[in-house]
Amino acid sequence: MEKRKVKIVTIGGGSSYTPELMEGFIKRYDQLPIREIWLVDIPQGKEKLEIVGKMAQRMWDASPYDVKVHLTLNRQEALKDADFVTTQFRVGLLNARIKDERIPFSYGMLGQETNGAGGIFKALRTIPVIGEIVEDMKILCPDAWMINFTNPSGMVTQAVIKNFGWKKCIGLCNVPVMAMLDEPKEIGYQSNEINYQFAGLNHFHYHRIFDENGNEVTKALIDAINSGRQSGLPKNIANVPFFCEQLETMGMIPCGYHRYYLRSQEMLEHGMEEYDGIGTRGEQVKATEKELFELYKNPDLDHKPEQLTKRGGTYYSDAACECINAIYNNKQIPMVVSTQNNGALSDLDDQCIVEVTSYIGATGALPIAWGKMPNAQRGWLQMMKAMEECVIEAALTGDYGQLLEAFALNPLIPSGKNARQVLDELLLAHQDYLPKFKNKIDTLKQEKLVIKDLKVQEIIAQELNHEDQ
Amino acid sequence: MEKRKVKIVTIGGGSSYTPELMEGFIKRYDQLPIREIWLVDIPQGKEKLEIVGKMAQRMWDASPYDVKVHLTLNRQEALKDADFVTTQFRVGLLNARIKDERIPFSYGMLGQETNGAGGIFKALRTIPVIGEIVEDMKILCPDAWMINFTNPSGMVTQAVIKNFGWKKCIGLCNVPVMAMLDEPKEIGYQSNEINYQFAGLNHFHYHRIFDENGNEVTKALIDAINSGRQSGLPKNIANVPFFCEQLETMGMIPCGYHRYYLRSQEMLEHGMEEYDGIGTRGEQVKATEKELFELYKNPDLDHKPEQLTKRGGTYYSDAACECINAIYNNKQIPMVVSTQNNGALSDLDDQCIVEVTSYIGATGALPIAWGKMPNAQRGWLQMMKAMEECVIEAALTGDYGQLLEAFALNPLIPSGKNARQVLDELLLAHQDYLPKFKNKIDTLKQEKLVIKDLKVQEIIAQELNHEDQ
Amino acid sequence: MEKRKVKIVTIGGGSSYTPELMEGFIKRYDQLPIREIWLVDIPQGKEKLEIVGKMAQRMWDASPYDVKVHLTLNRQEALKDADFVTTQFRVGLLNARIKDERIPFSYGMLGQETNGAGGIFKALRTIPVIGEIVEDMKILCPDAWMINFTNPSGMVTQAVIKNFGWKKCIGLCNVPVMAMLDEPKEIGYQSNEINYQFAGLNHFHYHRIFDENGNEVTKALIDAINSGRQSGLPKNIANVPFFCEQLETMGMIPCGYHRYYLRSQEMLEHGMEEYDGIGTRGEQVKATEKELFELYKNPDLDHKPEQLTKRGGTYYSDAACECINAIYNNKQIPMVVSTQNNGALSDLDDQCIVEVTSYIGATGALPIAWGKMPNAQRGWLQMMKAMEECVIEAALTGDYGQLLEAFALNPLIPSGKNARQVLDELLLAHQDYLPKFKNKIDTLKQEKLVIKDLKVQEIIAQELNHEDQ
Amino acid sequence: MEKRKVKIVTIGGGSSYTPELMEGFIKRYDQLPIREIWLVDIPQGKEKLEIVGKMAQRMWDASPYDVKVHLTLNRQEALKDADFVTTQFRVGLLNARIKDERIPFSYGMLGQETNGAGGIFKALRTIPVIGEIVEDMKILCPDAWMINFTNPSGMVTQAVIKNFGWKKCIGLCNVPVMAMLDEPKEIGYQSNEINYQFAGLNHFHYHRIFDENGNEVTKALIDAINSGRQSGLPKNIANVPFFCEQLETMGMIPCGYHRYYLRSQEMLEHGMEEYDGIGTRGEQVKATEKELFELYKNPDLDHKPEQLTKRGGTYYSDAACECINAIYNNKQIPMVVSTQNNGALSDLDDQCIVEVTSYIGATGALPIAWGKMPNAQRGWLQMMKAMEECVIEAALTGDYGQLLEAFALNPLIPSGKNARQVLDELLLAHQDYLPKFKNKIDTLKQEKLVIKDLKVQEIIAQELNHEDQ
Repeated sequence: MEKRKVKIVTIGGGSSYTPELMEGFIKRYDQLPIREIWLVDIPQGKEKLEIVGKMAQRMWDASPYDVKVHLTLNRQEALKDADFVTTQFRVGLLNARIKDERIPFSYGMLGQETNGAGGIFKALRTIPVIGEIVEDMKILCPDAWMINFTNPSGMVTQAVIKNFGWKKCIGLCNVPVMAMLDEPKEIGYQSNEINYQFAGLNHFHYHRIFDENGNEVTKALIDAINSGRQSGLPKNIANVPFFCEQLETMGMIPCGYHRYYLRSQEMLEHGMEEYDGIGTRGEQVKATEKELFELYKNPDLDHKPEQLTKRGGTYYSDAACECINAIYNNKQIPMVVSTQNNGALSDLDDQCIVEVTSYIGATGALPIAWGKMPNAQRGWLQMMKAMEECVIEAALTGDYGQLLEAFALNPLIPSGKNARQVLDELLLAHQDYLPKFKNKIDTLKQEKLVIKDLKVQEIIAQELNHEDQ
Repeated sequence: MEKRKVKIVTIGGGSSYTPELMEGFIKRYDQLPIREIWLVDIPQGKEKLEIVGKMAQRMWDASPYDVKVHLTLNRQEALKDADFVTTQFRVGLLNARIKDERIPFSYGMLGQETNGAGGIFKALRTIPVIGEIVEDMKILCPDAWMINFTNPSGMVTQAVIKNFGWKKCIGLCNVPVMAMLDEPKEIGYQSNEINYQFAGLNHFHYHRIFDENGNEVTKALIDAINSGRQSGLPKNIANVPFFCEQLETMGMIPCGYHRYYLRSQEMLEHGMEEYDGIGTRGEQVKATEKELFELYKNPDLDHKPEQLTKRGGTYYSDAACECINAIYNNKQIPMVVSTQNNGALSDLDDQCIVEVTSYIGATGALPIAWGKMPNAQRGWLQMMKAMEECVIEAALTGDYGQLLEAFALNPLIPSGKNARQVLDELLLAHQDYLPKFKNKIDTLKQEKLVIKDLKVQEIIAQELNHEDQ
Repeated sequence: MEKRKVKIVTIGGGSSYTPELMEGFIKRYDQLPIREIWLVDIPQGKEKLEIVGKMAQRMWDASPYDVKVHLTLNRQEALKDADFVTTQFRVGLLNARIKDERIPFSYGMLGQETNGAGGIFKALRTIPVIGEIVEDMKILCPDAWMINFTNPSGMVTQAVIKNFGWKKCIGLCNVPVMAMLDEPKEIGYQSNEINYQFAGLNHFHYHRIFDENGNEVTKALIDAINSGRQSGLPKNIANVPFFCEQLETMGMIPCGYHRYYLRSQEMLEHGMEEYDGIGTRGEQVKATEKELFELYKNPDLDHKPEQLTKRGGTYYSDAACECINAIYNNKQIPMVVSTQNNGALSDLDDQCIVEVTSYIGATGALPIAWGKMPNAQRGWLQMMKAMEECVIEAALTGDYGQLLEAFALNPLIPSGKNARQVLDELLLAHQDYLPKFKNKIDTLKQEKLVIKDLKVQEIIAQELNHEDQ
Repeated sequence: MEKRKVKIVTIGGGSSYTPELMEGFIKRYDQLPIREIWLVDIPQGKEKLEIVGKMAQRMWDASPYDVKVHLTLNRQEALKDADFVTTQFRVGLLNARIKDERIPFSYGMLGQETNGAGGIFKALRTIPVIGEIVEDMKILCPDAWMINFTNPSGMVTQAVIKNFGWKKCIGLCNVPVMAMLDEPKEIGYQSNEINYQFAGLNHFHYHRIFDENGNEVTKALIDAINSGRQSGLPKNIANVPFFCEQLETMGMIPCGYHRYYLRSQEMLEHGMEEYDGIGTRGEQVKATEKELFELYKNPDLDHKPEQLTKRGGTYYSDAACECINAIYNNKQIPMVVSTQNNGALSDLDDQCIVEVTSYIGATGALPIAWGKMPNAQRGWLQMMKAMEECVIEAALTGDYGQLLEAFALNPLIPSGKNARQVLDELLLAHQDYLPKFKNKIDTLKQEKLVIKDLKVQEIIAQELNHEDQ
């Protein structure tokens, strides 16, 4: 019996990543035949959707395959009978990211868009929206898989699976992909000669590596890292080295993001330098994106441009295509994904979402049981997961006290009055996307809270102007 | 870099299963090139070793491959530089199995050679011997993998990994293999169209099945079973049906051995009938084995004879070859094996050994995290694992009270004075293989304990005669 | 501030135990002043309620205290503004117990009214009724404490706390009380010279003992037991000794009921003897009760008669009074009660109910953290708790498959066709009290299921006659 | 049988706290008769030992009881046949505390002597010494109880119980004592009208409170705290208020030390102010101590002077006496102590030490099972315990990488190069007490590491001078 061709829906289809996604589907078409592709976006993203949508159609037209790319602002229309839904949207657009970063920096704190204060607010804005998407899917495509790569991927995936009850969801991240591509050569191996075992949380995982004979070669990579080689580091993370002795005691490879926690001082210094100089990562990305969209407008461009790899999230979309392919064809290949724990990390609750090497096939992600972590890593993971759960709880209930709890737990936010000030300014700055916190935000307005960072003030003023038009 | 050809050592090489093992290696030679094969046995098994060893060499000689089969009674000589060690020995030979079965039956109790009183004594005899093998391996082949298919596979594998500290050990069983081969056709599928997820303990597991699209089809198989079709049942287990409503509530497929626990009455009646009539399974197998060895003597026979499949343990050896192949070639294929839990079954301790779907590659078995079981299955598994741990503890310490604990916990042994009598008779009957229990056995002898079953008396008398010679 | 006098309500007030309860309150009146006592019963119990109610009033009238004992068949009237509600009712009266016992015995199985098949059915009958009582309490006395001593106390208390959500509930049992009264003298101590630590489940617990200097003297008691002394054994349990070596390995004192599990054969033989002879325990109790009520009718009797101690449940009511006293006066004294686990037995789930030494005060029961059990005991407890949870689930849902699961798990019921027959006969025999199982019972009737035991047939015929009148 | 009078040994007997300890024993003498008291100290503490020892003897002489206070520098002599050993020593004396505080402050980090960098080093210095004491006790007084109130009490007690295997150890702290004394009046209750339930770790616990009727009144105290009243705060902790909304969400009372974690910014500012001004807490205490010893020299002083309560550790010694009394007389009274978890906090491992309400009697501390914590508190506790375990591991092994792990985890230490600098300076400053880290310290010396803080430089110079003499 021949399998039905699939319908793919991409929420946040106007993203600059879409061409990579198209490329991923085109190169896998022989295995993964596509019926139709729908790119969905919101009214504010209409212009970008049209640019990138035309570009996407040109890519398919230049391929041997006859696939129609549908563009729509109507999510329900798109979701009808979908087989796979990928989510790559950003509530509040890049401006929101810039606010997430600049407000903490204006008080001398790391503005980090995933695990830090920024990540907390990105989760607060995203979770209600993804909850609405899940409600739509329950009605319109109850058998579809959701492949989430909206950050913070771990918290968003947990909300989808545990809180909104959509079990057919897999969270993706490019950080493990980059590590697996780049690390082997540092110790004299080809990519396919190394087996990986990852376990932890999104942007907070550890891995061990083994050669083809099953011998652990993690120590060799630690030595390479300690001698100054670093690889697989996402472009958005400053390359501050880990302390050699700490890596040796750890006996595992921490992901790139761990330097925020293990070298906070230097990461803060680096971030402050950018904040005071060329602008935060969000501002840099905004500029890159502008260039990308200029490129995409070129009616002769029918393939993914090289410049996209500078964007930071490279490999994300390719991982999504590979994941969809593995599900569709029951490939049972190992990937590192966010999925329900079920005991894989026995230091964490069975119900929570972890990021762990899993075999991907028709039934979704089957996580490998990793067992227990050493003391330090167990402590970090349990604490970070608790923080994530406070954030999700706050997103669902609008409980300000719960947000204070999350802020206090977060190791990138020194607790106290400045932390509270940052929290309040972020609430105010993102007010349009935080209806659950309306009461608190109204109080802050009555108290005439002023956002300190001038660029953020400016952005907000511009946004208000646009709305008025 | 070309990989080194492997040296295979088989402990208990005189077993009637050896030709299946040879066949398995021959058909995989292109992927799994073999340097040499060593079949090891003990002096009492010398005759069988020579018959089966010659047969094995004939099989290789009839193949396109040049492999030498070495026969030896010297385990150390064989283990030197081994890459893979398979263990298929039976301490006390088939006579021991017959004692394990007949003594309980003589008191109206199920004599079952794996989970029942027989299984407890098989573990007591085997664990000290496998401990010695591990000690040899630590010195002679410290990087080798042990592939254990000596029953009770779960307890023996746990002793090897947890108690003797040999991590590179995988326990195998043919029960899941048979289920996976036979079940799909009962619900209209080909074998390769179904994904399996097994979890539990050796001879005490449950599974769920999914079609190629990831949809669970377990219910369809339950309906098939409830309408009278049964498949994948090992030849040694009487086909008493499960209660339909119980399977429906369970929502999973229990393995064939579960009928000993869910239909104890009928299984006992069936066993008593054989005990009173054609003889217990061990007696039947002894006859089959005799025939097999007659066949093996035929100098023209150079392939596995059809009759071997009647033997009961079919597919075992093939599974062992496939497992070795998967490790050698890092195939990362799913198999159901006994391996360290590490959270895979989160109702059980991380350190214990479970039998669970795992991906087999160069690093060994990576178990899939299954999560929690429903109430009833959790209770059974926790209790059975506790019983296994009492048995292992008793085997290591010779503590008679611990054996009484294991006997009381075992659901196939009604507790009380007859159970104790069975325990004592088994200690006496197996005295040569239970040095840890010497004191207790001496006391039993002083008390003039008499074994009730006449055939067992006869077997012991014969054995004494042989020793005298 | 003087504390308010309390209102006590006793559900099942017509029980023969009520005089012990009254005695307990009278002797504690100075500490525990009582406003009023309400004895509640059902129409079928009206005659007994009146006899025992008058007796109760006479007891108070003979005391220095002016307390009115109210009798009613209207539960809601009684519960209004209650401070403490004690539950000692028996759904189906003693006839139900006799059915619970005789039907299993008629198939050669232990008919045990707490943990065995009888206990399962007692739970099935009781849980729906106690659920209704809780619903009444939520409206009529939302701050009251429920002190449950209706058996099977563990399962009933778990249903109340975990399933019906009434947190202010403590389950009591006289088994630990009797052990604590009787054991010290066996090893040369006074009662108050020994500290106890109990942990386990109702009718399935273990304890350790310590002298006044904190030294463990459990071993001395084990030696005493092994030398033939046994104490604290409830009257309803035949005194079959434990195996000495097993106690020594255990290193703890099992409760009296454990002999059902550790000496099943002898306990069954003893039970069959009674079944074939003087009648089961229920039949004996029925006779005793008849005598008691004859005594209670005597208008000159104004104190608890000596004969009541023969009844088997002695000390139960006194424990209830002491527990109420400890709550009312925040005494923080150690008692062994059924309460929410919360980690006290870390081998069991936090949410389940365990029976464990707890300090009783104004906030209820504070369980002492015991930690982990040795292998065998852990296995037993986890399995028994799983069985209990299957029973509660079945009681709440009417799922016949779940009942089959519970029957299979229960170590006192050999699984198979006779077990199913016993299950079906019990369903039929108790049909008036099992509305959730109506469909299944209707099917059994259509299939003309006949109850084998003639005495049970007779009882049912009598009951039908009574109903007709 | 009359109980034997007890022998008390106090390690660190020259402490200024000793008079409070004496007072505590004197006022309990009728219940807790004392045979002899031994005050032990090290040669550097000889002068203080003699002053405080004479003072202690005067206190007894002024009492109605005839007790001899022995002074010795020979620990073994003192420990012989001891019944209770209290430990209140400070390795490196108050100078060590000053170093612990000033070095972090010199890099703008909180120098906190219990949970912060200072606490980590206090543990590193103390654990080897307490290990030696345990070794002595195993030989000289194998039945004695150790009552530890050497900080960091949680880590030290864990090392004693879990790592050194001395089960008869209870850790004490005055923080809960002070809370229980002061809080009730804030909400209109007497001390004895409130029941407390504490759970957590030393200097990192939470509590709930209940009135005499069992009603929870925690919310009333939260409201009182939020309206500005704070009570039970140790003198050494600056009174920075918690965020009201956070307390409300928490629903429990955090201990005073939590403000270091929940208001880090303000606590750091306050500490820096003292560091730059009147001196750190250690410097203040050193001055107070000097005054105290001047007082103690007064040959007419025969009772505890009022000034001792300013010292900060008040109630500590009284708690120790009460704990000893409860054990000796099997009082079974609730106290908040550090003891083995055993499931009491089910979010933490059974083997670790927690600080939790326990009933104290002849068998030691029986912890109340608390169950699970809300997300945020669970995360904090799991992380803090992991940090403690890294510290203990480092203390036992001398692993520098493990220390880096502990420093990174500790929320009071921003990770990075300054943290490492602080770590290295502390190693150097405490080199005499850290033999396990000799290699690392030698390397630091070769690298000519200079301690930045001038006062610490000065202290070290003075100490070297003294040694030379």
